[in-house]
Amino acid sequence: MSAFASLNEFRNILAAMPGPDDVAQAAAEARNGQLTKPPRALGRLEDLAIWYAGWRGQERPEIRSPQVIVFAGNHGVAARGVSAFPAEVTVQMVANFQTGGAAINQLANTFGARMDVHALDLENPTADFTKGPAMSEAEVVTALLTGWNAVDEHTDLLVTGEMGIGNTTAAAAISAALFGGAAKDWTGRGTGVDDAALEAKAQVVADGLAANADRDPLEVLRCLGGRELAAMAGAIARARSLRIPVILDGFICSATAAVLACAQPGALDHCVAGHVSAEAAHAELLRRISKEPLLSLNMRLGEGSGAALAIGVLKGAVACHSGMATFESAGVSEG
Amino acid sequence: MSAFASLNEFRNILAAMPGPDDVAQAAAEARNGQLTKPPRALGRLEDLAIWYAGWRGQERPEIRSPQVIVFAGNHGVAARGVSAFPAEVTVQMVANFQTGGAAINQLANTFGARMDVHALDLENPTADFTKGPAMSEAEVVTALLTGWNAVDEHTDLLVTGEMGIGNTTAAAAISAALFGGAAKDWTGRGTGVDDAALEAKAQVVADGLAANADRDPLEVLRCLGGRELAAMAGAIARARSLRIPVILDGFICSATAAVLACAQPGALDHCVAGHVSAEAAHAELLRRISKEPLLSLNMRLGEGSGAALAIGVLKGAVACHSGMATFESAGVSEG
Repeated sequence: MSAFASLNEFRNILAAMPGPDDVAQAAAEARNGQLTKPPRALGRLEDLAIWYAGWRGQERPEIRSPQVIVFAGNHGVAARGVSAFPAEVTVQMVANFQTGGAAINQLANTFGARMDVHALDLENPTADFTKGPAMSEAEVVTALLTGWNAVDEHTDLLVTGEMGIGNTTAAAAISAALFGGAAKDWTGRGTGVDDAALEAKAQVVADGLAANADRDPLEVLRCLGGRELAAMAGAIARARSLRIPVILDGFICSATAAVLACAQPGALDHCVAGHVSAEAAHAELLRRISKEPLLSLNMRLGEGSGAALAIGVLKGAVACHSGMATFESAGVSEG
Repeated sequence: MSAFASLNEFRNILAAMPGPDDVAQAAAEARNGQLTKPPRALGRLEDLAIWYAGWRGQERPEIRSPQVIVFAGNHGVAARGVSAFPAEVTVQMVANFQTGGAAINQLANTFGARMDVHALDLENPTADFTKGPAMSEAEVVTALLTGWNAVDEHTDLLVTGEMGIGNTTAAAAISAALFGGAAKDWTGRGTGVDDAALEAKAQVVADGLAANADRDPLEVLRCLGGRELAAMAGAIARARSLRIPVILDGFICSATAAVLACAQPGALDHCVAGHVSAEAAHAELLRRISKEPLLSLNMRLGEGSGAALAIGVLKGAVACHSGMATFESAGVSEG
């Protein structure tokens, strides 16, 4: 039996999600104060470790089984010339993921993460959202369930990545629909369009907004999103239900996460922003969902690459927290 | 036979250091342009990989054997109350490093780095630099050689860290002596002194500068530095002679690196800044040595911790560069 069969059932699941384990989090905070370092000397690593401990329900957690899931989808709006790459690159890159040749494969290997790839109905692009909704309810629910079911319940840290020619256009439209502002303010160069194509892309976003006005957040996802975005939303929600912390990736992942945040306040409490990308509107989008990025390295690849790189930061934070000696155990004088 | 027996001989070695392998670097740059990603989509990771390839002399290098070396020293100025911790913490923390209980142990483990600890004559603190030079020439040369000889020639990425109660005071004095400005502009809270102690600490720095005026950079290291700082300088120089890239850590490591940069322009071309720390003057110091930090996580622990965390970023960058498929090999259409 499926976890949910409609957007409304998914909405109800979001409303009933668990929070962190306050007892474990308090124990981790107390432990942090006893470790052999000056107070706050590990800076943000301390906050990360305590946050992670709370979600995992353990005073001294470990990160042993990170999972990276890459979802791929095709977009009707790709036919409108919104990308510097042709639409067939989506399926070509799925093959590249499967044979281990993409950036995300190298990063998953580097940080000891399992990697899974889910291609979502690539031969059937979503509808062109400038003409109406990108997906039917059945289509978006199927995509959400793909993401929901893709999360390994034994995972202890999740990264959701994406591939889909045209999907920064979808993410821009979602962001504008959720937070307002002009289409051009949310539209960036994606894989690298020139000035003329950027202007045309912003017009596609504006047309999509006009054709799909006044929707609630999950309807925004259905009408302006894509299958890989919906799948990421499903995976992020499933991770929350399992109390698995999530590292968000760039603009597209953050836009899909923002749908959850707007649908249900606090829905991203188990998430941290892995990085701020070079895609123009990502920094503003992170401000809207109140996430401070861990890394800022001018990346803009997608695939989960920025988030995967941040697995190292999380691993380091948790390793310090759980592995360090205390002042008492090490016989070090406190200040 | 020692590599050098005087500051003058060390100065001559610095002047004759090798540069990167331009042929390998050009080959790496050409390879980068063929990888399955939009141009520049990996942002700074691309620059890091090409830079690393140049220093290693390989088009497709790997990072297999990082080394973290922590040097510890004691400081005469510690008796002036410049730290929130008593001086005996230096030797206590060395024991903690040796038994694996410090933050740097966890981070070295997390990123697969060998870790070595060198305690430099802890029972003999350097002289109080407010009264005259901290070290004799023989003392500073011995410390430089300790660092020089600590680098494993099979290492492919070096992190130098430090422990020494009082050493942010030394680093502040070095920075002011090298770059000018008021003592208080370079003086921060170190392990966490309060306002009154911060003011007194700035006065100690000012007194040290007055007692050791008009020195060339290596003399600044001798007069205002400490043994662990000189050892880091020796190790960074040795890495250069072996074309081993170095990740610089926080304020103290950067101050000692700045000595090399001021003694010999280009002496830090094989170095990248691992992070910008929360120590007040570190960001300014990085600007003075023209290094853009990889991480900014409000850390201020020392030990090499910020640099060790950045090993993950370097590993990710090099793994993408050397492991990714090309457009041609993967059959992916170019934009």
